[in-house]
Amino acid sequence: MSRSASARSTWNAVAPEPDRVVAAASASARAWADAAPTARARVLEAVAGALEGERPELVALADTETRLGAARLDGELTRTVFQLRLFADLVRTGEALDVRIDRPDPRWPTGPRPDLRRYRVALGPVLVFAAGNFPFAFGVAGGDTASAWAAGCPVVVKAHPGHPELSYRTAGVIRQAMARADVPEGVFALIEGQRAGTDALRHPALRAAAFTGSTRVGLTLARVAAERPEPIPFYGELGSVNPVVVTPGAARARSAEIAEGWAGSLTLGAGQFCTNPGLLFAPADGDLLDALTEPLSRAPALPMLGDRIAEAYGDGARRLAALPGVRRLVWPKDEASTAPRLLTLDLAAFAADPRAAAEECFGPLGLVVTYERLGDVAAAVTSLPGQLTASLHGEPHEHGDLADLIAALAARSGRVLWNAWPTGVSVTHAMQHGGPFPATTAPATTSVGTAAIERFLRPVAYQSWPQRLLPPPLRDDNPWGVPQRVDG
Amino acid sequence: MSRSASARSTWNAVAPEPDRVVAAASASARAWADAAPTARARVLEAVAGALEGERPELVALADTETRLGAARLDGELTRTVFQLRLFADLVRTGEALDVRIDRPDPRWPTGPRPDLRRYRVALGPVLVFAAGNFPFAFGVAGGDTASAWAAGCPVVVKAHPGHPELSYRTAGVIRQAMARADVPEGVFALIEGQRAGTDALRHPALRAAAFTGSTRVGLTLARVAAERPEPIPFYGELGSVNPVVVTPGAARARSAEIAEGWAGSLTLGAGQFCTNPGLLFAPADGDLLDALTEPLSRAPALPMLGDRIAEAYGDGARRLAALPGVRRLVWPKDEASTAPRLLTLDLAAFAADPRAAAEECFGPLGLVVTYERLGDVAAAVTSLPGQLTASLHGEPHEHGDLADLIAALAARSGRVLWNAWPTGVSVTHAMQHGGPFPATTAPATTSVGTAAIERFLRPVAYQSWPQRLLPPPLRDDNPWGVPQRVDG
Repeated sequence: MSRSASARSTWNAVAPEPDRVVAAASASARAWADAAPTARARVLEAVAGALEGERPELVALADTETRLGAARLDGELTRTVFQLRLFADLVRTGEALDVRIDRPDPRWPTGPRPDLRRYRVALGPVLVFAAGNFPFAFGVAGGDTASAWAAGCPVVVKAHPGHPELSYRTAGVIRQAMARADVPEGVFALIEGQRAGTDALRHPALRAAAFTGSTRVGLTLARVAAERPEPIPFYGELGSVNPVVVTPGAARARSAEIAEGWAGSLTLGAGQFCTNPGLLFAPADGDLLDALTEPLSRAPALPMLGDRIAEAYGDGARRLAALPGVRRLVWPKDEASTAPRLLTLDLAAFAADPRAAAEECFGPLGLVVTYERLGDVAAAVTSLPGQLTASLHGEPHEHGDLADLIAALAARSGRVLWNAWPTGVSVTHAMQHGGPFPATTAPATTSVGTAAIERFLRPVAYQSWPQRLLPPPLRDDNPWGVPQRVDG
Repeated sequence: MSRSASARSTWNAVAPEPDRVVAAASASARAWADAAPTARARVLEAVAGALEGERPELVALADTETRLGAARLDGELTRTVFQLRLFADLVRTGEALDVRIDRPDPRWPTGPRPDLRRYRVALGPVLVFAAGNFPFAFGVAGGDTASAWAAGCPVVVKAHPGHPELSYRTAGVIRQAMARADVPEGVFALIEGQRAGTDALRHPALRAAAFTGSTRVGLTLARVAAERPEPIPFYGELGSVNPVVVTPGAARARSAEIAEGWAGSLTLGAGQFCTNPGLLFAPADGDLLDALTEPLSRAPALPMLGDRIAEAYGDGARRLAALPGVRRLVWPKDEASTAPRLLTLDLAAFAADPRAAAEECFGPLGLVVTYERLGDVAAAVTSLPGQLTASLHGEPHEHGDLADLIAALAARSGRVLWNAWPTGVSVTHAMQHGGPFPATTAPATTSVGTAAIERFLRPVAYQSWPQRLLPPPLRDDNPWGVPQRVDG
């Protein structure tokens, strides 16, 4: 692929070391943060348009490097372009600035209230660790990058080693679009290599980092961020087994439908999703366990993102299979196969060490926990580590018995689903993609949806300033036309 | 004081050890989180009314223990009662829930959009480390407690050792008011002692902690929170020197007025405020330095909160006085006096080690940095650690030269002031009391004002649920009447 080789050398020729990259980001931070909403929105849209313009090449390159298939990757690029445009729309509204104006009030109960005006400002340079399993949507121009840009932060992306050529090419497209829009150079940069990533993370001018990937790597990087002389927020979206509970009523009413739905969600993209529903609680009575086994035993082996990931999948599956009380229901003859695995154990065995049984095995592995009484499942859910999602499959007539279980599912996750599957995270205003630790290192944040922008902003209040010295969104004449909440 | 002694023994009789206290908080968490806004608001108002009802006794007790004076303490109790009522108002509006509803949309660009409903839920049990310098406003029933309750979190307060009797008495008033309102017992508890505080902080059921106090203690506790098996957010409001810049124009036009204003802010409450403006940049030319010296040389020694604080003030002052290039302008003959100290050094000496010169000395100490050219001050401000506030005193005709300086002040602080002094933090919607690290351990948050509630909430999204299983604020019939943002 001479074309990609050329992308690499071109990129390397312009990408200096992390120190200089973060310094350049810092130098451009004020100009980018102060840009009017329309100007910043246009840049996001220009990047979206430029990526759209290179769709065939980008998708082909991604498929070569990730083996995820052209159809899925085409859809993912659509999502990535949509995300950029959605954040552009959000920037235009000015809502993320959360402008609050309290006018002077001499009769305020705690003493005369001064003129106070508060809005949210960009944090400064952000480091994005691109993910391996979503080369577009969580990649160089993915959701973390888009939301940080939208907030007004320059972004340094640490490329994922799983798809270097796509990373260079995407970076080239971004850089060209930004140059055409006269954006300061430091607003975007690409670096590569583990060492460069941690060096950038330690740079004193860096202000935040976002990461999507494994719990192990995420927690290591989170520690680096926390141990800086000036600690910075580290938004890590880590592992999750996304528990699913099937009630006795649902199992009786539609075991085949649930089994097909689960198999589809569990094997989608070879199970390489952070929302993969790897843990399912099923009634011990009835035919659900048999029904769950059937489609998975037929499911083919799909290629995984790389050989190391396939090996880790096999290792993880063997570790789970070796836990006390675990039986194998679906297991390929070839140990090296990436075909689905299905394991089961009963609730008592699960309860003996829920954290071991609930450890993520990245890939198409399902672990079914069989229960005798639905009333015991809430406690099992409560014993789980934090999760991105939790799903309940039930029937309308069971409503009365589900309150405790629903509360437990909501308490341990960031998104709860009813008769639905967690894969396919919609990019919307109400989406929450982030749950209690360790699913997310900052559980009050989301990495998908418009609220993702909040990670890269902090409030500043201006007290008693003359109009002409105030930032535009805080002025009475409101030149940017942003929403201003006056006197609460 | 037999009455206080009795308060202590009564309290100790009902306050079990930290483990049981946090477990009780956890047991009450769901009921408190699920309470309707009006019910929760009424409890906050009941506590406010009960404190108001004990005003004379509480103020007298606080004055005995803190030596802050009845007038100041009376005003602080007013603020504390007001805070509780302001949060009650906020709870009633339902705005903090940030309800977002995205209806199903089959034509959504990234694929059919499911029914998604997101709101913010209470984190769970919160530990509040009460402050010593604000026995009411940051005390047992202070802003951290009020905002955590408002969010729907049970609160365990670790009493400050500086005013134990006031803490017991306040706790007794709260407990009685809550019992009358049938609030579950675990919603409030008081513990005491350093060991009990760290034990509670390590309790697995604890979900967040808030702290107001010294940088040293705050960072130690932040580390405990971060090193838990499940780390939790630690909202530490730590030290700050709150830099003030006086322009040449302002110094020429109103040196006496500025000097009086500074002396008033610096010596208020014996300088025992986190917003105390301890660092001032003044033009080397002109009479401002003389003017600043005059009122401080006349200012009396005020009693400090305790002997250890007075000693630490003396030690800190001597440390600063010993830095290279520092001269003493006001210094008491009696080294043990808590009278104001005034020190000065020039910008070059300051720039040699800005972090040493900008280390907080808790008490009425002012350090004046003299500059030759205003254009050099922005870099000095940029070299400071993060600050709660930063102030600029200037003249209208200087506007054109101030942009870089204002940007630097805003970049290193959470609140910027124009021709005003930072003490006297107004409790409003637009207030921001929290700045870049280490002024605050979580710089995107505030500990004063209505936005303080956000620290104790996290979002949860509900996908595809039938109406009757949704939490009340997410239902179409909206039984709580909260604002619902539909489709963005």
